[in-house]
Amino acid sequence: MVDLQDVKNAQAALAGYIQHTPLFHSPQVSALTGLPVYLKAENLQRSGSFKARGAFNKLLSLTPEERARGVIAASAGNHAQGVALAAQTLGARSVICMPEGAPIIKVENTERYGAEVVLYGPSYDDAYQKAVELQHANGYTFIHGFDDPYTVAGQGTIGLEILQDLPDVATVFVPVGGGGLISGVALALKENRPDIRVVGVQAAGAPGAFLSLQRGELVGSDSVRTIADGIAVKRPGVLNWELIQRYVDEIVLVDEEEIAQSILILLEQTKLTVEGAGAVGLAALLGNKVNDLKGPVCILLSGGNIDVNIISRIIERGLVKAGRYVRLSTFVPDQPGSLQKLLATVANTGANVIEVHHDRWLNKVTVGEVEINLSLETRDARHVERILATLRGEGYTVSVVPPYRPA
Amino acid sequence: MVDLQDVKNAQAALAGYIQHTPLFHSPQVSALTGLPVYLKAENLQRSGSFKARGAFNKLLSLTPEERARGVIAASAGNHAQGVALAAQTLGARSVICMPEGAPIIKVENTERYGAEVVLYGPSYDDAYQKAVELQHANGYTFIHGFDDPYTVAGQGTIGLEILQDLPDVATVFVPVGGGGLISGVALALKENRPDIRVVGVQAAGAPGAFLSLQRGELVGSDSVRTIADGIAVKRPGVLNWELIQRYVDEIVLVDEEEIAQSILILLEQTKLTVEGAGAVGLAALLGNKVNDLKGPVCILLSGGNIDVNIISRIIERGLVKAGRYVRLSTFVPDQPGSLQKLLATVANTGANVIEVHHDRWLNKVTVGEVEINLSLETRDARHVERILATLRGEGYTVSVVPPYRPA
Repeated sequence: MVDLQDVKNAQAALAGYIQHTPLFHSPQVSALTGLPVYLKAENLQRSGSFKARGAFNKLLSLTPEERARGVIAASAGNHAQGVALAAQTLGARSVICMPEGAPIIKVENTERYGAEVVLYGPSYDDAYQKAVELQHANGYTFIHGFDDPYTVAGQGTIGLEILQDLPDVATVFVPVGGGGLISGVALALKENRPDIRVVGVQAAGAPGAFLSLQRGELVGSDSVRTIADGIAVKRPGVLNWELIQRYVDEIVLVDEEEIAQSILILLEQTKLTVEGAGAVGLAALLGNKVNDLKGPVCILLSGGNIDVNIISRIIERGLVKAGRYVRLSTFVPDQPGSLQKLLATVANTGANVIEVHHDRWLNKVTVGEVEINLSLETRDARHVERILATLRGEGYTVSVVPPYRPA
Repeated sequence: MVDLQDVKNAQAALAGYIQHTPLFHSPQVSALTGLPVYLKAENLQRSGSFKARGAFNKLLSLTPEERARGVIAASAGNHAQGVALAAQTLGARSVICMPEGAPIIKVENTERYGAEVVLYGPSYDDAYQKAVELQHANGYTFIHGFDDPYTVAGQGTIGLEILQDLPDVATVFVPVGGGGLISGVALALKENRPDIRVVGVQAAGAPGAFLSLQRGELVGSDSVRTIADGIAVKRPGVLNWELIQRYVDEIVLVDEEEIAQSILILLEQTKLTVEGAGAVGLAALLGNKVNDLKGPVCILLSGGNIDVNIISRIIERGLVKAGRYVRLSTFVPDQPGSLQKLLATVANTGANVIEVHHDRWLNKVTVGEVEINLSLETRDARHVERILATLRGEGYTVSVVPPYRPA
């Protein structure tokens, strides 16, 4: 098992290797909820997520001989980057197994930290089996992403930092996948201040720990499917499950739409890049998933490694949903002045034209007409309706172009 | 004039109203430059930028009678939100004049803080004249965005926080528009530690203070044109110019491409939403605009109020430029299996398909062919070339779809 002394030892060992990340008051989120809300910005951690803590603590526990032989892990995500960074810093060789379809940016980020990446098989389970095989063949030390006492103690140092920077914290929201993060953080918080309420948050598409707490025994979910890839884990680890039972007050679920919306709020209002897994705590808070909430509230933003392509799509969808952006398709006569007339009509509705796209080659268009695509900044959904009505009233045929869906 | 005691008084006055924003080491930027680099995250300030400091300090200096009569300002940006927030908090009425084309999101954010927004005229100068007119008609106090000793002293509190959190700082990069920020910050830094090098950074499209230093007299630039709208100011203020001459070591310029790239690096690698004006310091550092640089370096990220639409466009352009993303248009026979064959060929090149768009209605296409649009995640520019060569070798007609340009 792991105890508070292990977490304290980890904090001493990690000094100089990891960042004591900022914890700060968020006026924006506080205003949205009516409670004092603080953000623990672990997205600003080295390697872009909390995983560096556990990885450093684990690698520091190895003998020089073990480090010289090398370490291996299976992950296409934050654990890969955390292990690679720790190994590079401590002069150990690292091999990371990922499934073949892993995003190129994640492969490159892991290689940038000096790791050797092995792409194998269609799924994470295949990559995991390959890692076990390579471990035995080459005498590597296997670095588990969550089910390891050193990893748990490393992640637990976040709990100590929260207590140091926000001593009167009442409620802490923590993302849950395999449980490595919450088991360490909850231990550190509760052993110091048993009155703190620790709320775990999972994506509804990957509810392993939630189901386990509900049934009172360790179970997994059959499949995992969520944009919060950092917590897309089928079942919690054995050690993690023990600690969750002892220290975590409850686990709640949030859906994909809530996660995407929270990523956008964090980006736009609190000015932070946070990945899906890191945003679930805010999603739970804003979705009122917890009753009788007491402040000060701390939301643990666990990481910021999100593909910028996904950010781009979330922005567009979020704006469309809120009625703040719309793409329209319409037609004008193919003669001078007709585009200007259309734009003047749009301007009179109070919308701002962001982009005009003009295509003379579409065969829906009768001879003598051209299609115009307009991207407009708008106020809200009612404003969009007014614009459509105005244009149709002027005789334009108008349709709304749907946003791209995330890949 | 303003002196160090005014800044210290401002710091005492502002306690409880503004955030002492985090200053933290950036391993990512340090790795890019080989120097220890720290970020002063003023994008996390209340109202989303440093402007709240100056606005609170100015409003706190007013008599209860003046506050009761109300304050007025002209701004479509950060100053508007800073004044509105300060006025709302201190129970003063505020009126903000903006030009008619102001982005809707900026109008709404300002109204959200309780201000009355007056839209007037096509340009900032028109809105400014309207504000002066309303000031005289209604007895409001005019709150200038930079040319005011209380505003300067308020912004200077950032310098005191930098000294407190990073006592051995050697070089500080500060964005420059009207000069309100740098005049206060440079004063606070130099009066405490004259050996600190203070580097001002302007957008090449708005170089008023740069030109003034170069010519040794206060001059303006004829026009301003930059995505860094927070520093799109024609000429520095009179008071600001005095202080810049006394305390600022040099002012350097960065171009639009460098600013856009820095916004993307901050978003993706350091996990922060930073607006164009806030990103110029990083652009200057990465663009090697300064010789004989000494660390530790502090980059002042002055604000984070950037339209998410612009973020979305910068992401796409940045990825295309780096060869990490490409949109292709090609044609396949309109029969079962032909799309799968195309996708298999693409997969063999190692690219990841993000999105497939399929349109049977384009008239470029001969009967029996359909156009396919593919969005691909790629490694780099050479990878894109290899993909194009492979597809053409297989007989496909392929063209690259250019990215949207920022509005």
